Amino acid sequence: MKLTKEQKQEILDQQSQSNVTKRVISPELEKILYEALPVLDHGFVRVVDYMGDDSSVVQSARVSYGKGTKKVSTDSGLIKYLMRHRHSTPFEMCEIKYHVKLPIFVARQWIRHRTANVNEYSARYSILDKEFYIPEKEHLAAQSKDNRQGRGDLINGKQADEILKILKEDAQKNYDDYEKMLNEKYDGSVIDENKQGLARELARMNLTLNAYTQWYWKTDLLNLLNFLALRADSHAQYEIRAYADVMIDSLKKWVPITYEAFMDYRVGVTELSLKGKSIVKKMIKGEKCKFEDSRLSKREWNELMESFGFREHLV
Amino acid sequence: MKLTKEQKQEILDQQSQSNVTKRVISPELEKILYEALPVLDHGFVRVVDYMGDDSSVVQSARVSYGKGTKKVSTDSGLIKYLMRHRHSTPFEMCEIKYHVKLPIFVARQWIRHRTANVNEYSARYSILDKEFYIPEKEHLAAQSKDNRQGRGDLINGKQADEILKILKEDAQKNYDDYEKMLNEKYDGSVIDENKQGLARELARMNLTLNAYTQWYWKTDLLNLLNFLALRADSHAQYEIRAYADVMIDSLKKWVPITYEAFMDYRVGVTELSLKGKSIVKKMIKGEKCKFEDSRLSKREWNELMESFGFREHLV
Amino acid sequence: MKLTKEQKQEILDQQSQSNVTKRVISPELEKILYEALPVLDHGFVRVVDYMGDDSSVVQSARVSYGKGTKKVSTDSGLIKYLMRHRHSTPFEMCEIKYHVKLPIFVARQWIRHRTANVNEYSARYSILDKEFYIPEKEHLAAQSKDNRQGRGDLINGKQADEILKILKEDAQKNYDDYEKMLNEKYDGSVIDENKQGLARELARMNLTLNAYTQWYWKTDLLNLLNFLALRADSHAQYEIRAYADVMIDSLKKWVPITYEAFMDYRVGVTELSLKGKSIVKKMIKGEKCKFEDSRLSKREWNELMESFGFREHLV
Amino acid sequence: MKLTKEQKQEILDQQSQSNVTKRVISPELEKILYEALPVLDHGFVRVVDYMGDDSSVVQSARVSYGKGTKKVSTDSGLIKYLMRHRHSTPFEMCEIKYHVKLPIFVARQWIRHRTANVNEYSARYSILDKEFYIPEKEHLAAQSKDNRQGRGDLINGKQADEILKILKEDAQKNYDDYEKMLNEKYDGSVIDENKQGLARELARMNLTLNAYTQWYWKTDLLNLLNFLALRADSHAQYEIRAYADVMIDSLKKWVPITYEAFMDYRVGVTELSLKGKSIVKKMIKGEKCKFEDSRLSKREWNELMESFGFREHLV
Repeated sequence: MKLTKEQKQEILDQQSQSNVTKRVISPELEKILYEALPVLDHGFVRVVDYMGDDSSVVQSARVSYGKGTKKVSTDSGLIKYLMRHRHSTPFEMCEIKYHVKLPIFVARQWIRHRTANVNEYSARYSILDKEFYIPEKEHLAAQSKDNRQGRGDLINGKQADEILKILKEDAQKNYDDYEKMLNEKYDGSVIDENKQGLARELARMNLTLNAYTQWYWKTDLLNLLNFLALRADSHAQYEIRAYADVMIDSLKKWVPITYEAFMDYRVGVTELSLKGKSIVKKMIKGEKCKFEDSRLSKREWNELMESFGFREHLV
Repeated sequence: MKLTKEQKQEILDQQSQSNVTKRVISPELEKILYEALPVLDHGFVRVVDYMGDDSSVVQSARVSYGKGTKKVSTDSGLIKYLMRHRHSTPFEMCEIKYHVKLPIFVARQWIRHRTANVNEYSARYSILDKEFYIPEKEHLAAQSKDNRQGRGDLINGKQADEILKILKEDAQKNYDDYEKMLNEKYDGSVIDENKQGLARELARMNLTLNAYTQWYWKTDLLNLLNFLALRADSHAQYEIRAYADVMIDSLKKWVPITYEAFMDYRVGVTELSLKGKSIVKKMIKGEKCKFEDSRLSKREWNELMESFGFREHLV
Repeated sequence: MKLTKEQKQEILDQQSQSNVTKRVISPELEKILYEALPVLDHGFVRVVDYMGDDSSVVQSARVSYGKGTKKVSTDSGLIKYLMRHRHSTPFEMCEIKYHVKLPIFVARQWIRHRTANVNEYSARYSILDKEFYIPEKEHLAAQSKDNRQGRGDLINGKQADEILKILKEDAQKNYDDYEKMLNEKYDGSVIDENKQGLARELARMNLTLNAYTQWYWKTDLLNLLNFLALRADSHAQYEIRAYADVMIDSLKKWVPITYEAFMDYRVGVTELSLKGKSIVKKMIKGEKCKFEDSRLSKREWNELMESFGFREHLV
Repeated sequence: MKLTKEQKQEILDQQSQSNVTKRVISPELEKILYEALPVLDHGFVRVVDYMGDDSSVVQSARVSYGKGTKKVSTDSGLIKYLMRHRHSTPFEMCEIKYHVKLPIFVARQWIRHRTANVNEYSARYSILDKEFYIPEKEHLAAQSKDNRQGRGDLINGKQADEILKILKEDAQKNYDDYEKMLNEKYDGSVIDENKQGLARELARMNLTLNAYTQWYWKTDLLNLLNFLALRADSHAQYEIRAYADVMIDSLKKWVPITYEAFMDYRVGVTELSLKGKSIVKKMIKGEKCKFEDSRLSKREWNELMESFGFREHLV
């Protein structure tokens, strides 16, 4: 990730602020505020504002339940309780704003989370940066055979080189043609004084989906957790997971108690259906359990056995 | 509005905080942070947290439009432009959180604004305060004759006294019976050691709609403006308007430029339909305009004439 | 539940419609369309419109995953898979609209589900019905001792009679005074020709929270499931559960496959945290598990043991 | 727009349905249900389901206002009143579902309307169609000089040919390379039996933003109107306007009264700020108005004069 001189200066200016406030602050998050945390080859995540901390979650819960919460003596105990029982509204009382630079195909997955506020750099108004995402060789995976959605074996050697060559050359060629149609280089210089440039809103359609865009993305803590639970999951596409992983670090700095409860009761959670649970209960009693008697589908049986690490039971 | 000792202490504790932050602050809003601003007889509004200021709106707009916004040189010019053209997303980048004490019937109107986060004091868990809204005599209006929704003439004299007596006595009686069913006073003392108290979630149904509840209410600047545009309007019920008016003061302190643009281009705006505009254009050209030729409904014609102050044209 | 003559006629008129459409229909739901299904003493639930059925969920999932879903051969298999893995968007493709009559304190819980469309009967414009919810004696429970939110033992005998008497008399008295202040009876007759009536928007504040209101409530299938998962749960207050139970019946008629998947993979689901799961795994292997070694809180340990029916392990 | 055999058959199957329902129907909309209405070169819009009609708006308004709406005697009068006064919730009571095929850069604008349900064809699972949007020559406009966002003069002759050549060749080349990396043609045939295909979720990043995607898009009537007000506006990019125009036709068939009110009181509306109105009032009184005395910015003055057609007043 390379930043322009202006970007570096802007970050320095923002970080040199020192304001006095009566609001609660999150000391660890303050330390990385505005910093451009690198993601993928040209992307970044920056925390640019926030509101509230763990104590804000507690405060709201205590208003809701009034004197009823006095029994749960510690903040940590209360937050764990709220997370375990999927209470939602107290976690909505904190807010965070990110500045993110990301490939367009990642932005298209991301935007499906609707409960957030977004201001994206507009290619109708302005020319996009000359930067495209090219995967590391170690992420060039083949299509999975048994999972329609996932990645399978790594692609190595010559074929990997060919693929990277295609991705680089096509993105480069399409960007060059983008400038040509605009009759303007990214730096603002005009290419041919005797020509008009094509409207930006049209020229952009020639760009590839790995071109980088950027946006401000603001959401509350509850919806951030929902986003992270899905996007930091091993089933998420690697490229969006790379962003989610960096954001989980910022979550940990911002609201350390909520972070811990999230890892215990959301990320690490296993769900047992009624039928699944009755099988587990039998197993605990020492009874033999076979797929044939389970009334589960094969896929479901395997998911259950795998989740408990009983590989010998897979069918 | 009377605060308990504990509430007063909590406010003092919150206000005595002095934290250093790299975030932007809103100096005027800091001055009233946490303060209980009185509304109606027992209610209040407190700003308890916020994120961003006018500069956050500008920053987001400039990211969206990139270099395209350089032409609009001042922040104030840009915010006015955004407001006038109903741009929405830049105003979503600021957030504010209020603590509000309000009568239940007001809470029921308020909650219809769905794009906000709410944590309300729960009468399933805890006992509600012994406070009810009783209107000032100057707000005791009769049902309007020509507007199904509004208030008409003031009710005076003996009838007003009777109404106030009813409101006070019924609310008081219902609260006393609430305590009786709970077998517990608000202060926590048990009434009859030999009895069980009715479940709180049941007993509360005996309360009247002018009983006070409280909540944390958090929303972004755009949705705050939408709320205020509706609820500070002269057609809104007086009791919710009283809250909106206090909140408009906090808006002015928080984001003074946005506030000004809001007053000019939202609150004070007149909408002209196609037909309405063609009538106005004729009037400007000095042509006579009559209801009969207007193709407007009578109601619409009157709304138009009234909005321009042409009372002599009313039909 | 008593309906007025006009209401009965309206329902008959609606049910006598017979229109031809190219849209999919849900045959079982058509049979109860518009019918007033009784809930509590004066409330009802009516399904008044709907869009889509199980096949709409399937259709959307197949568009999303394209040829990728051909492997899952049956609609039922696909819907179960979607439910088990918490896929959400395909379930948003169906919509349902209810007409509900319900006590105000129930409406206040219900409205916290924000992702729905609501049109409520307005007491600013019109006079509310003279009907209040009075619980059956078998639902008059005492406040639970160990659960701040729940109900405990039943209240019997004389105390129960006293409570019911209070609820009835207070609601009745407050309604009588409501009419008195309005100077108008519910049937529209004026009480005293020489007096003005208090504005409706003011008079309503004298009503009790067990007065009945009504609304149209429209939501998509996903959010209906979220609502039912919370409100048909045993921890929900009985009075809102009574509505959820009737709505679950309508769910079963509308989308029978989704209903079944919902009961298996949402309602009946048990969540195991990381620590909880490691205890269950040990138990399956036949190892002894004790609270002291579990690193769980006492509350969490008990929840886990209870959920598997190991009452002897409770601490 | 060309449809595959399977698509044509699916549409025929859907259209041949004839179900009997007690729900209200919209006769004109039924006539075009499921039909693929062509947009741009390869796109389409299909109405695939709907719920409610004009009478549903009226029904909800009458429930809200109760007996209070009896005065407005006609449905048409009531809908106009609701639209004029920006009442929102009654328009939320109708729902519509579209199946849309559209270029990715249009999809990216469209998705910014968050209050809708979306199921998009996933290029993680399946291979995208080999179709790209290439503008008609008559839409090849140069970047506007005075409006950063809009289009200016048409680009003609040789330069236009060059641009079209670039767009076609780049899109084609990138799609060919997409297939090459996938090691699979769109029709499913494998290219080289000795190679693995790159994961689809990766290969797709090589596609251009004018590639076509498709989705199911479902929203309520209010949010459809909000979408159309913005996207059928002359300031919207031509390519999304082309979709909005076709959808406005479907709106007219679905809810003809709402459509008419929308055209009168939303689409054709002019907003006057406080200052703007005071100028108009002066003009009506025959007073001379000059920019210098107006306290408006130049831009605002010009917008006002232009909107009333007073070109001679532009500064």
